[in-house]
Amino acid sequence: MKLLRYGPAGQEKPGLVDKDGQVRDLSAHVKDIAGEAISPEGLKKLAAIDAASLPLVNVTRYGPCVAGTGKFICIGLNYSDHAAETGAKVPPEPIIFMKATSAIVGPNDNVEIPRESLKTDWEVELGVVIGKHAKYVSEDKALDHVAGYCLINDVSERAFQAERQGQWTKGKSCDTFGPTGPWLVTKDEIADPQNLKMWLEVNGHRYQNGTSATMVYGVKYLVSYLSQFMSLHPGDIISTGTPPGVGLGQKPNVFLKAGDVITLGIEGLGEQRQEVVQG
Amino acid sequence: MKLLRYGPAGQEKPGLVDKDGQVRDLSAHVKDIAGEAISPEGLKKLAAIDAASLPLVNVTRYGPCVAGTGKFICIGLNYSDHAAETGAKVPPEPIIFMKATSAIVGPNDNVEIPRESLKTDWEVELGVVIGKHAKYVSEDKALDHVAGYCLINDVSERAFQAERQGQWTKGKSCDTFGPTGPWLVTKDEIADPQNLKMWLEVNGHRYQNGTSATMVYGVKYLVSYLSQFMSLHPGDIISTGTPPGVGLGQKPNVFLKAGDVITLGIEGLGEQRQEVVQG
Repeated sequence: MKLLRYGPAGQEKPGLVDKDGQVRDLSAHVKDIAGEAISPEGLKKLAAIDAASLPLVNVTRYGPCVAGTGKFICIGLNYSDHAAETGAKVPPEPIIFMKATSAIVGPNDNVEIPRESLKTDWEVELGVVIGKHAKYVSEDKALDHVAGYCLINDVSERAFQAERQGQWTKGKSCDTFGPTGPWLVTKDEIADPQNLKMWLEVNGHRYQNGTSATMVYGVKYLVSYLSQFMSLHPGDIISTGTPPGVGLGQKPNVFLKAGDVITLGIEGLGEQRQEVVQG
Repeated sequence: MKLLRYGPAGQEKPGLVDKDGQVRDLSAHVKDIAGEAISPEGLKKLAAIDAASLPLVNVTRYGPCVAGTGKFICIGLNYSDHAAETGAKVPPEPIIFMKATSAIVGPNDNVEIPRESLKTDWEVELGVVIGKHAKYVSEDKALDHVAGYCLINDVSERAFQAERQGQWTKGKSCDTFGPTGPWLVTKDEIADPQNLKMWLEVNGHRYQNGTSATMVYGVKYLVSYLSQFMSLHPGDIISTGTPPGVGLGQKPNVFLKAGDVITLGIEGLGEQRQEVVQG
């Protein structure tokens, strides 16, 4: 299933994409794409619905594809070739940091360059959405706790991240720095999350052209690893890192400016398009 | 006012402390100590209630004193003498990092030592609770966005924090690592947040005995500073750093073990007591 949320920001309704690619309203069946609705039992119920019986929707805005996100956990330097382009080594175990959940926006909402920003950058990433509480979970059971996958742009301000006292959160958490969606694609539709093409363009120039096959720590490992440190809850998102081609990796560096248009996609997970505006 | 939440975990009800120190139920007036209820208008309404008219409550458990926390933002090395004891310099601007909101527990709930933990440590901290959306706020307007203050134990696993690949989140976000409360004390009751005595004991031995007067970056500055990087929302918590006396600062180091009892307090903000258990 491709689940989604549509409507004005803060008032999104739940929906799904039917087999003809049309959006249908799920409001009569679930309150939101969140919590119980994305548990294994919840997803089973949704899968049993005859999509053709649901009202058709003309979507004017996609919201973030999942609600009730308590944690937006990111993995740093998780593609060997991206680590190389930033001058860093692949870490011996995952680097984890948090993005503020208040950074989450819809997939096609504007990306806002924060005031005093010098180096706003992009990162196409494979997002993993938790569907079931996970704590001290083994790698072989990890996917039992995953509802599905989504496309994320892990927008980053490199000066805030690296030149303003250490911890990366500061450069990762600005408002609009987390476009998420359009769809939460349930895991049954993704045969191998470690073999998905992913790309990102700015103003039509392709900067990132990678594949999740070069991810260092894969989805199963990450879910298990994170669950050793903290409970993962339904709606939590893990953004698994980015392949090469970020602005910081260009020679000379390229950063976002107002008026730029970012487009990105991951195979099977849809596409995003953001206009860049000054905050 | 001293606002609080009481009852079993996940089913807390809102309450307040009356002038005789008795807890009264606020359920008839607000759904929870969260969102609108802690906005300037919401607090004005609560202050207008005749506490004596509210049902008395016999509290068997205090929950975290605020709900709907989207961000749990912490400030690192924000007391000059604490920075010194950990061998670090006072940073030229605030170090910020996130604690997972899933780490938040009630003030007297057990603290769980995570599996594989070697260095679980304590930190008494002054918490600032946001009551009104803040973005690009100046220092002189910062307190307009603060609902009040609370006591926090920023429990930390030093090996996870510093020896397991960089970013501090990993050592700060374990389940139960954020005892919060007992009370959200509204800001009108705290004449000067930069002059509060604070202390922490383990098994009756006083390790921390400080004052918020030695905080490097004060509450007003922090709210303004953070709001330059991201929107602060009602219910967000800023934990403002710890004075000297953490376990990592002892010679030799002292860390928590199952069976230990932690007690801590801040002048005007109440006390906490946690038993330490093995996770």
